[in-house]
Amino acid sequence: MAKNRARIVECIPNFSEGRDPGVVAAIADAISSVDGVYLLRTESDVDHNRSVVTFAGEPGAVAEAAFRGIACAVERIDLTRHVGQHPRMGAADVVPFVPIEDVTMAECVELSRRVAERVWSELGVPVYLYEESALLPEHRNLADLRRGQFEGIRDALGSDSWRAPDLGEPRVHPTAGITAIGARRPLVAYNVWLGTTDVAIARKIARAVRHTSGGLRFVKALAFELASRGVVQVSMNLVDYRRTPIHHVFEMVRREAERYGVPIVGSELIGLVPQDALLAAAEFYLRLNEFDASRVLENRLLDAMSADAAEDE
Amino acid sequence: MAKNRARIVECIPNFSEGRDPGVVAAIADAISSVDGVYLLRTESDVDHNRSVVTFAGEPGAVAEAAFRGIACAVERIDLTRHVGQHPRMGAADVVPFVPIEDVTMAECVELSRRVAERVWSELGVPVYLYEESALLPEHRNLADLRRGQFEGIRDALGSDSWRAPDLGEPRVHPTAGITAIGARRPLVAYNVWLGTTDVAIARKIARAVRHTSGGLRFVKALAFELASRGVVQVSMNLVDYRRTPIHHVFEMVRREAERYGVPIVGSELIGLVPQDALLAAAEFYLRLNEFDASRVLENRLLDAMSADAAEDE
Repeated sequence: MAKNRARIVECIPNFSEGRDPGVVAAIADAISSVDGVYLLRTESDVDHNRSVVTFAGEPGAVAEAAFRGIACAVERIDLTRHVGQHPRMGAADVVPFVPIEDVTMAECVELSRRVAERVWSELGVPVYLYEESALLPEHRNLADLRRGQFEGIRDALGSDSWRAPDLGEPRVHPTAGITAIGARRPLVAYNVWLGTTDVAIARKIARAVRHTSGGLRFVKALAFELASRGVVQVSMNLVDYRRTPIHHVFEMVRREAERYGVPIVGSELIGLVPQDALLAAAEFYLRLNEFDASRVLENRLLDAMSADAAEDE
Repeated sequence: MAKNRARIVECIPNFSEGRDPGVVAAIADAISSVDGVYLLRTESDVDHNRSVVTFAGEPGAVAEAAFRGIACAVERIDLTRHVGQHPRMGAADVVPFVPIEDVTMAECVELSRRVAERVWSELGVPVYLYEESALLPEHRNLADLRRGQFEGIRDALGSDSWRAPDLGEPRVHPTAGITAIGARRPLVAYNVWLGTTDVAIARKIARAVRHTSGGLRFVKALAFELASRGVVQVSMNLVDYRRTPIHHVFEMVRREAERYGVPIVGSELIGLVPQDALLAAAEFYLRLNEFDASRVLENRLLDAMSADAAEDE
């Protein structure tokens, strides 16, 4: 009946391939070939031409698996032939490490830097260290780093000194570009779909809700046209969902959409979402008093079982 | 890193004492004195003068713990001196067993009947077998059984033949009354608070939402005045929250309250709530496409870990 608590790091690399299932499967296989790594989810988007792999495990195993996944992507993806809705600069575009259980942010920073060193020295792909792992303040924000995308960065790297990678020479890998690696807090990737084909409306809403243009503190937002589905979307990253919760973001998008007479036809979570982000939304809408995650039967049972296991040791 | 899946039954007995913490603690101690039982929550309501204890564990341990809790309540609670807002008929008023993991409903029925036999033979308290454990269709519904409460049942037992207990003689225990024991599906106990002191409005809303008077299929509802808080409440049991979800219930209460110009000032969950009941509410309000519980990081990780542990065996 014991549940032994393990040290857990989550890694959610984004790869610039969402149309060839063979390539995505090869990357996922490379990742799960490491013992003690749990492959949690693989998600591909055809319009974005991009895949997100989610895995977790003990820190050392996760670092090795991330490296193997990146190596496979560098071998199999050619950015000079890549077209998609989502901005990208690398075959392995961004590789974040997230502390989940019994691991500090500092340990994740250390781990991300070790992986970054191997990516440059063994694969010849230059690396930006971003978010909590950033060495330079101007490398902290992924959106800044990715501006101009693969093609623009390739041309600008020699001249713009702030653009120089943290590891490697100031040039992109000819086919695999440049990769951002770093540690960060858990993030909620949340897209809201609008019942219109007018992407200009999604752009206006993205500007209204995102932090950089005056919106909510921990929201990043872009607008996309999803040709295959006949809708547009406001695509968001909630970079601190405890302080800017998902339901505040949804309600703000809804109010803005109303102003343009456009309905919200649905929304989607990309990758996996921490339980407390959704419980907070249920609490808000159901107007629950004195609620917290310990009111959930499954959580209470796991806690009671691991407390009991700890006593037995 | 292994998590071994155990066979789990949950038990949520309701006791007719919510004002004397010493009595409630004695009952909780009796329950948790059984090895392999996890006490998950104890909750007392002063207005209701009633406490709900939630515990779980392997079936045999849970049966023994339930019996010890009932025995303690029979010894410590005197219904002839009990006053409270909530209807009640026994010191241990109702004792439901709920299959949680790797246990069938039939096993819970069997277990409830074994406990019921001991409650009559060892404690002299007659027992109704209710819900899934009922032997008679007219004993299935707890609200029917409890009509008239302790005092009314005491007077009616000799004359109304359908009132005869399933175990024991047709008389109440002089101080401990009569107890309902049975197996049932997981239940969500959900109260919505209205910003008025007019309990007649809460009564009208309870009638509108509950199944027996024409409302939602799997909702039972009563109205209460909460003198200590200056509000009234619609107190509900959602007896099949997968088919009549909590957010549909909340929205119907809200619409009815609007019709009387009364605001909803909050709501509360009593006891513990299964995770999927709250995830469904988040899904509904955030308009999530293609969402299920496997999108929750913690769930995915536990599943991956137990699959891995199973492979190792």
